[in-house]
Amino acid sequence: MKTSTVLSHPNIAFIKYWGNRDNALRIPANGSISMNLASLETRTSVEANPEFQSDSLTLNGRKETGTALVRVQAFMDLLREMSGNPYFARVSSENNFPQSTGIASSASGFAALAAAGSKAFGLDLSEKELSMLARRGSGSASRSIPDGFVEWHAGKKDADSYAESIAPAEHWELWDCVAVVTDQPKKTGSTEGHLLAGTSPLQAARVQDAPRRLEICRNAILKKNFEALADIIELDSNLMHGVMMTSTPPLMYWSPKSLKIMQEVAKWRKKGIPAAYTLDAGPNVHVICTKEYADRVRARLEKIPGVARVLISGVGSGVQVLL
Amino acid sequence: MKTSTVLSHPNIAFIKYWGNRDNALRIPANGSISMNLASLETRTSVEANPEFQSDSLTLNGRKETGTALVRVQAFMDLLREMSGNPYFARVSSENNFPQSTGIASSASGFAALAAAGSKAFGLDLSEKELSMLARRGSGSASRSIPDGFVEWHAGKKDADSYAESIAPAEHWELWDCVAVVTDQPKKTGSTEGHLLAGTSPLQAARVQDAPRRLEICRNAILKKNFEALADIIELDSNLMHGVMMTSTPPLMYWSPKSLKIMQEVAKWRKKGIPAAYTLDAGPNVHVICTKEYADRVRARLEKIPGVARVLISGVGSGVQVLL
Repeated sequence: MKTSTVLSHPNIAFIKYWGNRDNALRIPANGSISMNLASLETRTSVEANPEFQSDSLTLNGRKETGTALVRVQAFMDLLREMSGNPYFARVSSENNFPQSTGIASSASGFAALAAAGSKAFGLDLSEKELSMLARRGSGSASRSIPDGFVEWHAGKKDADSYAESIAPAEHWELWDCVAVVTDQPKKTGSTEGHLLAGTSPLQAARVQDAPRRLEICRNAILKKNFEALADIIELDSNLMHGVMMTSTPPLMYWSPKSLKIMQEVAKWRKKGIPAAYTLDAGPNVHVICTKEYADRVRARLEKIPGVARVLISGVGSGVQVLL
Repeated sequence: MKTSTVLSHPNIAFIKYWGNRDNALRIPANGSISMNLASLETRTSVEANPEFQSDSLTLNGRKETGTALVRVQAFMDLLREMSGNPYFARVSSENNFPQSTGIASSASGFAALAAAGSKAFGLDLSEKELSMLARRGSGSASRSIPDGFVEWHAGKKDADSYAESIAPAEHWELWDCVAVVTDQPKKTGSTEGHLLAGTSPLQAARVQDAPRRLEICRNAILKKNFEALADIIELDSNLMHGVMMTSTPPLMYWSPKSLKIMQEVAKWRKKGIPAAYTLDAGPNVHVICTKEYADRVRARLEKIPGVARVLISGVGSGVQVLL
């Protein structure tokens, strides 16, 4: 019997992951870049025990039975296969951010599960191997393994599709102010959405142009060039949503409130406030800004009608084994 | 001295024109399909007279001196060149729809000017030649020359870039309910916007896919298949706006109200109401529906907060020479 406990953070993508080259292995159509979010935490414990009759999952104190459990069981199968250890596991996970805010918990969740699970099953994996493993649970989880600012190399097969740190968390004090506009669960989840990416006439062009955007974004981070970062992350977000809304069926994740916030942020930047928007597969607007403007950006966001609350976070570390 | 007076209608594009292969000649990057709007009228008179010292333009009773006049003068130069007639002209044009509603008047304006101007300068042009000529003033004006449902063949040079009727106005009783959400003039006009199309990483893919969409749209019109028409016009509108919002600089023509209306229309259709949205380079939402639903669609649109007014129109004829 072995137990391991791990702390991880979700991440916000600057260059987005949308669509897979290989859906089963979650090999993405294009590389992506993100930053981990320090204030948002997932704590996951995994106990592997020969006495357990099946895998179990407790999320924020609640026993799960549905698709969440099925997805975790499939991931545990992978760990049993990799380790040769046949035991079932008890998984317990807690987020310090409400599920209902629309902040994706699958990235931090599977990053933590990969780290805690591999330890509990007696595997001693490198950061690269952990990132590859986390990817199998949720693509963006691969990016929550390394520290700070992270690039996920798309790769073409399992062994070359992993993330690594571009720069540590302390490299640049950026903040993410998340304007939460809805507590509604999204209609089409990311996993299902990725399958539709290829139906858009625009996806191939978005993917083909990705190396150019990755380079601009990587350089903007390395040189701490906020203007360059702002332009490329807004472009990349619009590219992904352009693909989403031209899929069959079309996926429109923006709400009128999202658009209002996006337009406000664009106006603020023209007036000299270093702030830029990016949206994942949901209506919440992540506003990236420099540390000295974070309070002002939050205050401005809170004044926009329809913004339910604003979460803020600096740059986070990679996954940390606590136990 | 010769005078001619002409009546024309603006059109709403189902498959959009965005970006040129040749900016000077307004040869478009892709073909497009539209319907003329019967209720919206432009009446234009042109008098060519050896006594005039320069071209003049009166729009809705107001003498124009700025860019509108310059654009008309350039068009008159074209007519003088084609006709060998050196006279200056007095142009007078009236719209029955307010300029401020954001309904593009350049399509009906240059269609009428091409027809009235060519007559006044003694040219006897075929419909095809008129369409080519109108195109030189404003690309979409080429589509306001023929009757009813119209396809503009992109072509590669002046002589093969013109519009012709796919089906007459009486073929299918479709209506356009235009939800007017702003009286603000747009920030970036279409002529300037077309120049930016090529800066989007998505434009080439949109253009490349256009023949497929044109065929689906043409067939939907010929077979009066509303469902097929609805899906393709919403896709095509989203494709164009996807390109616009990923240009450098990005062009965001949607307002939060536009998005609200788009999402409402999508919901209505899921409930069985034959209605579909399409947006040009502005925030107003054109809702295409069948005749029997036009009153209901208008009533529903009028109830959406932020809709200033709703203009409605059936399918219009091509340009008509009155005098």
